[in-house]
Parts: sequence; structure tokens; C-alpha cells
Amino acid sequence: MKTLVIVAHPDYKQSGTQQFLLHQALQMQDSQVTWHLLDNEKSLDVEAEQQLLREHQRIIFQFPLYWYSLPANLRQWQDDVLTRGFAYGTNAVLAGKEFGIVVSLGEPLNEYQAGGREHYTISELLKPLQAMANKLQWQYLKPLVISQFEYMTDSQRLALVTNYQQYLTLNDTSFAGQQQWFIKQLTTRIKHADTEIKKAQLTTIRDQIQDNFDELAELRWTVELIRDEEE
Amino acid sequence: MKTLVIVAHPDYKQSGTQQFLLHQALQMQDSQVTWHLLDNEKSLDVEAEQQLLREHQRIIFQFPLYWYSLPANLRQWQDDVLTRGFAYGTNAVLAGKEFGIVVSLGEPLNEYQAGGREHYTISELLKPLQAMANKLQWQYLKPLVISQFEYMTDSQRLALVTNYQQYLTLNDTSFAGQQQWFIKQLTTRIKHADTEIKKAQLTTIRDQIQDNFDELAELRWTVELIRDEEE
Repeated sequence: MKTLVIVAHPDYKQSGTQQFLLHQALQMQDSQVTWHLLDNEKSLDVEAEQQLLREHQRIIFQFPLYWYSLPANLRQWQDDVLTRGFAYGTNAVLAGKEFGIVVSLGEPLNEYQAGGREHYTISELLKPLQAMANKLQWQYLKPLVISQFEYMTDSQRLALVTNYQQYLTLNDTSFAGQQQWFIKQLTTRIKHADTEIKKAQLTTIRDQIQDNFDELAELRWTVELIRDEEE
Repeated sequence: MKTLVIVAHPDYKQSGTQQFLLHQALQMQDSQVTWHLLDNEKSLDVEAEQQLLREHQRIIFQFPLYWYSLPANLRQWQDDVLTRGFAYGTNAVLAGKEFGIVVSLGEPLNEYQAGGREHYTISELLKPLQAMANKLQWQYLKPLVISQFEYMTDSQRLALVTNYQQYLTLNDTSFAGQQQWFIKQLTTRIKHADTEIKKAQLTTIRDQIQDNFDELAELRWTVELIRDEEE
């Protein structure tokens, strides 16, 4: 599965969140992930944008929520790129994709509810994008919401790294699927490790996860066996 | 009360709806209404935009719903004009205004509901603007929704004229308030009528409305009297 991350930010270079996410995406060294920044300086090449959409199965909009909505350049992108006949309507070719949203907030997430300062939930505010996904026949994935990145602790940021990387590439969200994803990620990192020590360390971690996973599978099998005997 | 109509449309000159609404606004010959088109060719003069907001009590966003949202230039306008310290936050000066939306749809309105082609209601899709109104401490007016203007019959368009003009300038939405509004509009038109015949016709209509209104007031007074006697 190939993933296209469409990044829109009015002030991209100054955004700590976006620089952090870019770093994490590059760390993945995953040729299946395309990082695509909408550049306000250049005019949009509609053909190239449409080709990118054709080539990827999971499409992600990544942006900060300003005025409870998309940035203007991503709004314009919708008008220019998602044309009738290409994106929807007769002969449309984009149906069946997955659609994800990585949205960053300047306010705490718990203000986004009835009684909170922002009154409405993120689900309510993102309805226009959900309506777009319906129109395009895209599967709407649960958004990844990043709230007040600048106040996050180191451990929160570490958790974000995993959540973000999984959001870009994870197919199977079951426990087994997540384990397999970790093993795959570590295998890639082992291949690209720049020192032998690092390579050895990563291999140890990966093998440990694999062993745990095997042991769990065995335990599950034993439990099944006991159940069968009891019946 | 002064009203500012901020008009945003990706293809303004080709829009039958917008040309029709502009004509109706001009017909009003009401110096209290400012028609303000966001021009994509010119760069935004933030100072001038903020001054316009200061000078008006009712602010209206008028736009076609594309991708269930505002046009990109109006989205950009929000970021540029509604700045912290001016529009919200400490020392903000814009609180207490009225906020209206005139939105046009390409699809029939009844598709905008659960089970309809567009799935969500207009109230759901406009939540980001309602959240904006909350943030700015503006009173959110019931939106004026114009659905499939090009298929409207003549009588539907006539009704739209009244609804639209009232949406721009009506303060008191009671029956009495609406009557007074009609009388005021007709008085303005009588003043600007270009022939004596037209002037006489309009005067007859206005006097008829005024008479009906007086008669209704008298009837209401009689009903009150009867009620009082019965008690």
C-alpha cells in the first residue's frame, strides 16, 4: 500500500509540529510513503497532483486547524484537483481509496466538546471532509489529532512518533497487525543502521518482539486447547 | 444598522446567482448596505478590511458551497483579517456583531440530510463558521440557503428577492417588524421612482399595506378588549 501525505501549512518552516512529523516520516525510510508539501510559491500542476492521487492508495491531509477548517491552499487544491469526471461522477477513477487526516490544534483537545471553549468536537468540525470522503467514495479513517505539540513531554512525543508512523502505513489495526508492523519497521532500520552496534541493538529488540509474539501465539493456542477439552 | 456583505466566488462573473443577488442589493438603494466583493486579482488590504468590519454591525458571508466549505479566498481572508487582538482575545473590538451566511447550493436542499446524497445537514457542514462566530462573540443568524437557483421558477425568485433583502436589513423579525420593513422599502423606492405613474403605483401599494397594518392593529385591540370582558 502506498501513502500520499499532502501537507498544507500557512507557515510550514516555522511549524515545530510539521518539522517533527517530516523528520519522523523521513526516519521511516519507507519508499511506500510520499511526503508532498503544497508550496504556496509555485502554481499548482493539476496533472501532476492527479497523477499522485492515482498512484497512492491511502491519501492523508495533514494541516493545522485554523478557523476550524482547512488552510486556504488545501481548499483551493480541492477545487482544482478533485474535478468531476476524475474524482467523482461518471468515469471517476478515485473511488475506493483510504482517507486520513492528521490535524494539529493550538488548544487542548478537551476544549473541543459541548461546554468547552471551542464548543464542538473535532468530528463535528471535520464534517466537510467527511462529506468529501463520502462524495469520492473514500473510506474515512479515524483522524490523528495532535493537540498542543509544543507542550508535549518527551514520552508523549515518542508515543506520537509511533502513532504517526502507524497512521501512515499500518493496514491491519489488530494487535497481531501492530506487532508485525513493528517487526517490519525494525527490519528496515536494521538494514539502514550506520554502525554495527546500532544494528546489533535493533536486531536484539526485533528478535525480542518476535519471540514475545511467538510465545503469545503459543499461549493462545494452549488456551484454545483447554477450552476445547472443557466443552 | 449597517450591513457588510462579503462576497466570495471562484467565478463571480459567470455566477447567475451572484449577479442576481447583486442586482437585488443595488435595487434596495440602501446606503446602509455595503456590497464587498473579494477580488482575487488584487492583494488583500488588511487595514481596509478591518475598517469595514468596524463600521458595520451585521456581517454576512455570501458564497457558493464547494467541497462543503468556504471558497479558498474567504478562508484566506479569515486568517489575514480576523487577527488576535483585533477580532478576538484581549482588546478585541469586534464582539457583539451579527453574523449571517448566504450560501448557494448546486444540489437540492433535501439531499442535505441523513439518507440524502450529501448525508449531512447544512447546519452540520457550517459548524466551522458557527465555531468562528462563537470565538468572535458574534450572534449567529439562521443562514439563508439558496438551492439550485438556475432551476427556480419566477415566483420562487420573487420570494428570494424579499427573503434576501430582509436578510440584509431586517432587524425585527416579528410580523409587525416585517410590515414596517416593507413600508420602509417602498418609501425608498417611491423616492427614487423614475416616472410619475410608477410613483403613484408604489404609493398605492404602500398605503394599502399601511391601511391593512392599521386595521390589523385595531382588530387585535378589539380582541384584547373582548378577552378582558370575558375574564
